Amino acid sequence: PDNLVYLTLTSGPVVIELAPFAAPQHVERFKTLVKGGYYDGLPFYRVIEGFVAQAGDTDESADKQPLVPLAAETSTAVTQLSAQPFTSVQTQDLFAQQVGYWQQFTAGQDPQQQQRWLLHCPGAVAMARSTELNSATSHFYVVIGQAPRHLDRNMSVFGRVIHGMDNLQSLPRGEREQGGVIDNPSRESMILSARIGDQSHFHNKLNLQVQLFTGPKHQQTLQDSRSRDNPFFHYKGNGNLDICYYPVKVKQG
Amino acid sequence: PDNLVYLTLTSGPVVIELAPFAAPQHVERFKTLVKGGYYDGLPFYRVIEGFVAQAGDTDESADKQPLVPLAAETSTAVTQLSAQPFTSVQTQDLFAQQVGYWQQFTAGQDPQQQQRWLLHCPGAVAMARSTELNSATSHFYVVIGQAPRHLDRNMSVFGRVIHGMDNLQSLPRGEREQGGVIDNPSRESMILSARIGDQSHFHNKLNLQVQLFTGPKHQQTLQDSRSRDNPFFHYKGNGNLDICYYPVKVKQG
Repeated sequence: PDNLVYLTLTSGPVVIELAPFAAPQHVERFKTLVKGGYYDGLPFYRVIEGFVAQAGDTDESADKQPLVPLAAETSTAVTQLSAQPFTSVQTQDLFAQQVGYWQQFTAGQDPQQQQRWLLHCPGAVAMARSTELNSATSHFYVVIGQAPRHLDRNMSVFGRVIHGMDNLQSLPRGEREQGGVIDNPSRESMILSARIGDQSHFHNKLNLQVQLFTGPKHQQTLQDSRSRDNPFFHYKGNGNLDICYYPVKVKQG
Repeated sequence: PDNLVYLTLTSGPVVIELAPFAAPQHVERFKTLVKGGYYDGLPFYRVIEGFVAQAGDTDESADKQPLVPLAAETSTAVTQLSAQPFTSVQTQDLFAQQVGYWQQFTAGQDPQQQQRWLLHCPGAVAMARSTELNSATSHFYVVIGQAPRHLDRNMSVFGRVIHGMDNLQSLPRGEREQGGVIDNPSRESMILSARIGDQSHFHNKLNLQVQLFTGPKHQQTLQDSRSRDNPFFHYKGNGNLDICYYPVKVKQG
């Protein structure tokens, strides 16, 4: 519960699961800001159809104390991760040598370069930054469209949405010509409150259960998806899987 | 305009561009039903997070005249398409030998089997069917999540959403355990009206402009995406592109 963040947007509840194993400093920063009420009342001010919804403080008043920029956590040396298994789902994916699951998150791995990283699948939560790699401070985005895998290894993914994608995908879009920035963010795009491990501000209490990807049910799903050994499929495919289509499911119940 | 369908959902407007070149019989059926007011008042009764939103008539009263099932149009022989160019974007994509654009739609092509088909990218519109390949009649779905490419060559894609994805992605989800079927579809999920080439029922008139993918601007976008020759990208990738991330854009203006 210490790694679950409960957001109430104007459109409804959103729950983020944090990934301290992949981006410890980003998770710590996010938690600190959430605990301090930093995001309460801030808008999703940049929402691009088929891409991301980004939130943060756009008020650049001179009297604000700037936050210290974070060192990027775009990937982790595998040598540090011997105790953390990687369950491979697909080799030679379009973008990575190996993709699969790292804990309950979709991840990529490069055996030569001995690096592992979280993927920009739908629902991925990452910190925004400027051109400079080590420049993230507080603005964050959620992937709301087709996986922008070109951001893998470039941005620090530190969590994923496990509930309420509909409430993010319903946010008003900005114009692409203006980089998706919404001219005048209204109450419609607001984060009303953000809390760690505490959903007492939710109207309906959620009981979310992450389904283990190592479980036999999940393995069977992947096997069935590869073979398409089901009369519904008249074209049986080539056995390849897009890892971003198979996130570790979270059940409400 | 004859191939644009204007839907008004409870959540807002949605515009579909039809693809008669790929699925002529499905387009004809859809147009006939729209013109007859068939979809007016029907719900999106099956909405699955990360997958599709499906609409149709779930009332199986015995006194209704059943519609004649359609022969599948899951792909087209390339030999028939010599006058219709295919602009390749990526070879050896995870699922197809070639992917690119066919008219303004994302498509796949198999040079050996001489087949071409429309892809299940976000926004793709296709007819639902039972296990039997030639069984579609009227229920249709829209892809609202990561591209379910395993449905390529299995289902008849006949259009794409060019406006209002937010109004589809905000639809209430059903439970996965129940195949995403919503127990009791309410007004929230309703198609209030559907019209061909006529947006007079829209509150705000839209002026949608499809950007030509053959244009130099689009080609430059793809080239820049391949090379990531931009200081923002510290990891430059391998030059591969996910075609579903690069739909032909539609501008409002």
